[in-house]
Amino acid sequence: MTLCKMADNREQAPAAAPVTVKQPVNPAVNPLENMMGYLKADMASVNAFILDKMQSDIPLIPELAGHLIAAGGKRIRPMLTLASAALFGYSGNRQNRLAACVEFIHTATLLHDDVVDESDQRRGKASANAVFGNEAAVLVGDFLFSRSFQLMVEDGSLDVLRILSNASAVIAEGEVLQLSTANNLDTTRDDYFHVIRSKTAELFAAACEVGAVVAGRSSLECAAIRDYGINLGIAFQISDDVLDYAASADVLGKSLGDDFKEGKLTLPVIIALEKATAEEKIFWQRTLMSLEQTDEDLHHAVEIMRRHEAFKLSLDVARGYAAKGIANLLSLPANHVRGDLEALIAFAVERQY
Amino acid sequence: MTLCKMADNREQAPAAAPVTVKQPVNPAVNPLENMMGYLKADMASVNAFILDKMQSDIPLIPELAGHLIAAGGKRIRPMLTLASAALFGYSGNRQNRLAACVEFIHTATLLHDDVVDESDQRRGKASANAVFGNEAAVLVGDFLFSRSFQLMVEDGSLDVLRILSNASAVIAEGEVLQLSTANNLDTTRDDYFHVIRSKTAELFAAACEVGAVVAGRSSLECAAIRDYGINLGIAFQISDDVLDYAASADVLGKSLGDDFKEGKLTLPVIIALEKATAEEKIFWQRTLMSLEQTDEDLHHAVEIMRRHEAFKLSLDVARGYAAKGIANLLSLPANHVRGDLEALIAFAVERQY
Repeated sequence: MTLCKMADNREQAPAAAPVTVKQPVNPAVNPLENMMGYLKADMASVNAFILDKMQSDIPLIPELAGHLIAAGGKRIRPMLTLASAALFGYSGNRQNRLAACVEFIHTATLLHDDVVDESDQRRGKASANAVFGNEAAVLVGDFLFSRSFQLMVEDGSLDVLRILSNASAVIAEGEVLQLSTANNLDTTRDDYFHVIRSKTAELFAAACEVGAVVAGRSSLECAAIRDYGINLGIAFQISDDVLDYAASADVLGKSLGDDFKEGKLTLPVIIALEKATAEEKIFWQRTLMSLEQTDEDLHHAVEIMRRHEAFKLSLDVARGYAAKGIANLLSLPANHVRGDLEALIAFAVERQY
Repeated sequence: MTLCKMADNREQAPAAAPVTVKQPVNPAVNPLENMMGYLKADMASVNAFILDKMQSDIPLIPELAGHLIAAGGKRIRPMLTLASAALFGYSGNRQNRLAACVEFIHTATLLHDDVVDESDQRRGKASANAVFGNEAAVLVGDFLFSRSFQLMVEDGSLDVLRILSNASAVIAEGEVLQLSTANNLDTTRDDYFHVIRSKTAELFAAACEVGAVVAGRSSLECAAIRDYGINLGIAFQISDDVLDYAASADVLGKSLGDDFKEGKLTLPVIIALEKATAEEKIFWQRTLMSLEQTDEDLHHAVEIMRRHEAFKLSLDVARGYAAKGIANLLSLPANHVRGDLEALIAFAVERQY
């Protein structure tokens, strides 16, 4: 099967979104829980793959990988592979192994990301690098990454190997680009979208596309579900970047203001910078560029962003991507899975955690 | 084609080697130079792949990768893929792309290794992590690793993907195991062989096996050249570990005593520990376990090791593996490439750099 080339959404900023989210979203209901109703057996199989395939004769490997994996996380990426396969009516079980591959790649990037960010918290507990050291976190990330490719080889599809090796390369590129945007107040919206499209949306897209590939669907359908994944990933990441400032720390399950502490240039900050007074510019230079921060600064940063409506405007952009994602689904089977995928992209924006 | 399972050489320590190296080795002549005579065009193609495929829209990626790759190195692993294909009379050109994959995996592990070891020197110049930072070194390693799998997918052989994804997982396991043997004076010879077999010999073996796979050879022949690679890798690493203490720093092209500074338990140290007096044990505890070292300690460590013939005894073990590697070649085509592979394994032990 010939699969589609990656569509480039960067040039299509959704200023005037042609499609709007139809159903009102109740932020208290996570559509993933709905999907778990009919994907429960699949997800149990994915979890069994994850637990089985992270084993090694070297005890530190399952110990460290287990630390992160046991902490939970949303499992949204493997769920996308399962949901995509279900959307297309696939009745086999290849999606379970491949969803585990997707989660392994995600886990490997989290391990390396925490080393890069020098994070000490992940998923509401101490990060793996903080507990086991940076060295072990780097190497166990490498192991999980390799293990993911071993699992894909067991599955035997060169299309899947292509999709996920491409995604891995793009993720690494996005992470490197993010290094150069950190602490850089000249970071543009384009830079930001390049980063989040690469480091987040690409794996969402690949996870979706793999479901269509195992179901043997046409290149047009593969492209449509892939584009949905891109738009979902972008919407999800914008929301994440807003929540890092605006969420309640208890609900979020991770410490608030991490991006601020690291001087990351996320969309709400970029919007606030676009509207900054001379005095505010000096504030952002001191806190994000020079990383000279006092205890009061995070609170003050949030105040400035609220004054400029940076959260609302960021979420409006995310809503535009959500609308595009829902439009991507229009040509695909109009079943209950599609309804849940529509709800999921709306939830990705409106969620409180 | 069904390829062989990995033979386990660990139980076959070559105490009394049944085969001896026939030709006297002139340590001044590097057989790789000989091989370059007929592999020059192939190696030029490999280098072109490497330069082309390390490119990215993100400038830091080729900059950092180029820093390490331009520093040279022996290119022994890609050379093994080329030599193996030539040994088996393969006349196509798939080996060139795949040799670049092997070198990318090696480069990625070097980048991560230097982060883990906190090295500031590699191949006689400042290491990539020292110049560009640990974060970038981790992420560019991830990129090269992913790029390697993209290249394998372009080639399209699931056998090759299986061999190199297995090798990558084993390498990561070996590196993690090495973390737990560092500074641990209870490290046994078995632990040591487990580490070097995984972190070094596995990629040598995979590099060799890939050459046989592209040439479409039988599983027996794939197994034989793979075993040669394992024995070459073990012999090469033992020699490396001796050179880290006993070489002339000018000739070696990297700083001497790195393993000592990091408290790595390599074969010469393990042998010296087996024979240590009570006073020497205290010395090793202080220097390798507690890493409390003075300027004189490296010199003193070398003296102790010489007194116990630790270098000679280590190289004797390496010679045993070299002999086994030459025996692995006996069933393979008796052409000039085989002669060079025989010379190479002897050179790997006797080299001064």
